[in-house]
Amino acid sequence: MNAFYAQSGGVTAVINATASGVIETARKHKKIISNVYAGRNGILGALQEDMIDTNRESIRTIQNLKYSPGGIFGSARYKLKTIEENRIEYKRLIDVFEAHNIGYFFYNGGNDSMDTAHKVSLISKKMGFPVTCIGIPKTVDNDLPVTDNCPGFGSVAKYIAVSTQEAAMDIASMSKTSTKVFILEVMGRHAGWIASAGGLAKSENNDAPHIILFPEIAFNKNNFLKKVKESIKKYDFCVIVASEGTRYKNGKFLAETGAKDAFGHAQLGGVAPVLAGMISKNLNLKYHYAIADYLQRSARHIASSIDVKQAYSVGKAAIELAIKGQNAVMPIIERTSNNPYRWKISKTSLTKVANKEKMVPRKYISKDGYSITKACKTYLEPLIQGEDYPPYHKGVPKIVKLKNISVTKMLNKNFVV
Amino acid sequence: MNAFYAQSGGVTAVINATASGVIETARKHKKIISNVYAGRNGILGALQEDMIDTNRESIRTIQNLKYSPGGIFGSARYKLKTIEENRIEYKRLIDVFEAHNIGYFFYNGGNDSMDTAHKVSLISKKMGFPVTCIGIPKTVDNDLPVTDNCPGFGSVAKYIAVSTQEAAMDIASMSKTSTKVFILEVMGRHAGWIASAGGLAKSENNDAPHIILFPEIAFNKNNFLKKVKESIKKYDFCVIVASEGTRYKNGKFLAETGAKDAFGHAQLGGVAPVLAGMISKNLNLKYHYAIADYLQRSARHIASSIDVKQAYSVGKAAIELAIKGQNAVMPIIERTSNNPYRWKISKTSLTKVANKEKMVPRKYISKDGYSITKACKTYLEPLIQGEDYPPYHKGVPKIVKLKNISVTKMLNKNFVV
Repeated sequence: MNAFYAQSGGVTAVINATASGVIETARKHKKIISNVYAGRNGILGALQEDMIDTNRESIRTIQNLKYSPGGIFGSARYKLKTIEENRIEYKRLIDVFEAHNIGYFFYNGGNDSMDTAHKVSLISKKMGFPVTCIGIPKTVDNDLPVTDNCPGFGSVAKYIAVSTQEAAMDIASMSKTSTKVFILEVMGRHAGWIASAGGLAKSENNDAPHIILFPEIAFNKNNFLKKVKESIKKYDFCVIVASEGTRYKNGKFLAETGAKDAFGHAQLGGVAPVLAGMISKNLNLKYHYAIADYLQRSARHIASSIDVKQAYSVGKAAIELAIKGQNAVMPIIERTSNNPYRWKISKTSLTKVANKEKMVPRKYISKDGYSITKACKTYLEPLIQGEDYPPYHKGVPKIVKLKNISVTKMLNKNFVV
Repeated sequence: MNAFYAQSGGVTAVINATASGVIETARKHKKIISNVYAGRNGILGALQEDMIDTNRESIRTIQNLKYSPGGIFGSARYKLKTIEENRIEYKRLIDVFEAHNIGYFFYNGGNDSMDTAHKVSLISKKMGFPVTCIGIPKTVDNDLPVTDNCPGFGSVAKYIAVSTQEAAMDIASMSKTSTKVFILEVMGRHAGWIASAGGLAKSENNDAPHIILFPEIAFNKNNFLKKVKESIKKYDFCVIVASEGTRYKNGKFLAETGAKDAFGHAQLGGVAPVLAGMISKNLNLKYHYAIADYLQRSARHIASSIDVKQAYSVGKAAIELAIKGQNAVMPIIERTSNNPYRWKISKTSLTKVANKEKMVPRKYISKDGYSITKACKTYLEPLIQGEDYPPYHKGVPKIVKLKNISVTKMLNKNFVV
């Protein structure tokens, strides 16, 4: 039998390390999995019978995948509908799997993807071509339940911690005559894990960031401005890490303030310019802000070693679980010790993770809602340990290039998604 | 005699490597320069007699300064007025220098600072307390004349090249079903050197960035939108590196479009949201943008080795020039060979650099105005070579902390700037 592997949703700095783990491990079990077909643009690759033959890639390429950010085979923001809504899509998937003798489906994504993988496992059985479905966790948002943390998060957390520390040192040297407030806008629309990582820039001797804004804590404008003022008074400057999902008590995101641009369109950009405007209007302080956007989740150059290792390990474990006959499961990271940090790969049922989100628990956020607690730091710190630098060529990271050879199509008709 | 060293203007990822070069070299010539007093918050430290005694710092601290971004002693955006406008300021400066037996003034900054250093050299002589004044180049903008490049630029260039490459790999994997356009807004209000560094992400096999916007090239909206469309057609996505100084033919910055926020204030943020709005309105494409802001100039974690070396070398050379009796000069970087890249430290007169800006020459920008030429790449590439990683502690760069002991004040009165 062959295997199908697809990347799903927003990519991470280390999702290709997972691909590397999947493919390298599968190659060690050729008698069971003769080839791994990778979906070009994720699940679309299965629907459109557009797959990459990974057997044609050298072992060196497969090993070097771990240095490459982005999704090497292409990912997709595409959620299969329910079987009632779109039976034809599932039918097509099974047709393609059957035509290519695909008995294993490895879906590398977030909670949506775990739902899909689960459904495919059920439906394939019902359709008489049972496929072993293994979900593989991936998300910078760190919001999957059961697993201690998600591959992809450790690296974005490291990037945010390092960037916050560096920018804080910059503004600290300028605040006397220039910028007083610096805002770093980070990802995480629903869960504040990435914002919380800003707190790792803080050591006993270094007080930035002074304010972290979490989606989990209702934003209170007056309270926030008071906090900014306090910070200016104490340190002469204020560093803020703000989640893009920062919202008011009524649930409205700060980023949706009804502001208009010159064309009368809703204001572009996110929470940082809104906070900056608030600070400028009410406190008349000079500000700067950065919006890290894709830079944070693609920053392979400063990936966490632990994250790279874990991303590889869940890929490897996915193959091993499949070979052991497990179905509709997802490998998870289990923390066995905090100090020293120790972890192992374990597993959970897909039903336990599908469509569920794990928020930052209240006990990880300080009483005033503006920083992380010691418990949070204990949880986060191990995840950003170690630097796993990519090789460089001419001053920039060396790019891994695939031969990218397509699997010959077996079906005649095209499928329009 | 003692020396006074001050950092001026926006800081860089490597300005403290220059401080390290100055102090370490001065210590080797104790008979001539017995102590280096560092201005707390730049030139304000001299005016306010607020100086740090660097002799109290261990040699290890001085050597480790090179790993720290920001300005370790504090910098200042403060330009001395002309002597006609504010004679009292110059008088005060000389008073402080005289009181502390300061015979050497090292001013680490951009073209404004070179002007100040030059003036101090003239005025001190006239006032009967001649001070040897040496300017030391520093600017992420790379816009100082005479010197081949400016310390600070190589590291921001490396950061932008790496970030552009990484974000491009991210969007390449998502474009089929999600974001089609990614814009990275970079610094450089007048000169497009930082924007040009985005072009280093491009190799033969990697086409991003597809568009670079330089302040040197008048922005043409229709032409730009056409170029975006072409890129989408060819690659399915478009990566844009835009200088914050991108402007129309009439000189108006794109960032000043007259857009208003919810409070009726001029729109906050820069060129990226304006371009994004333009693309969304006219081409209806999904976009993302990042604003690197301070992250780019404080990114010591990905500093260029060459830049760190050169930053240290100009500091060292400044002391050596002073000891040789040179006055009103600035050490410069001279390129002696492109392949292999070779450079040496030479010098120029402060009058030749004061208040002058070096733009990206037209021959470094492609005919269509949207990318860099081979000549530009030949110039830029050596400057981002090598990675000079800082040491890490608990997952983030280890912070250098000064004892930060003040020099005892000799003058009674305070000076209000």
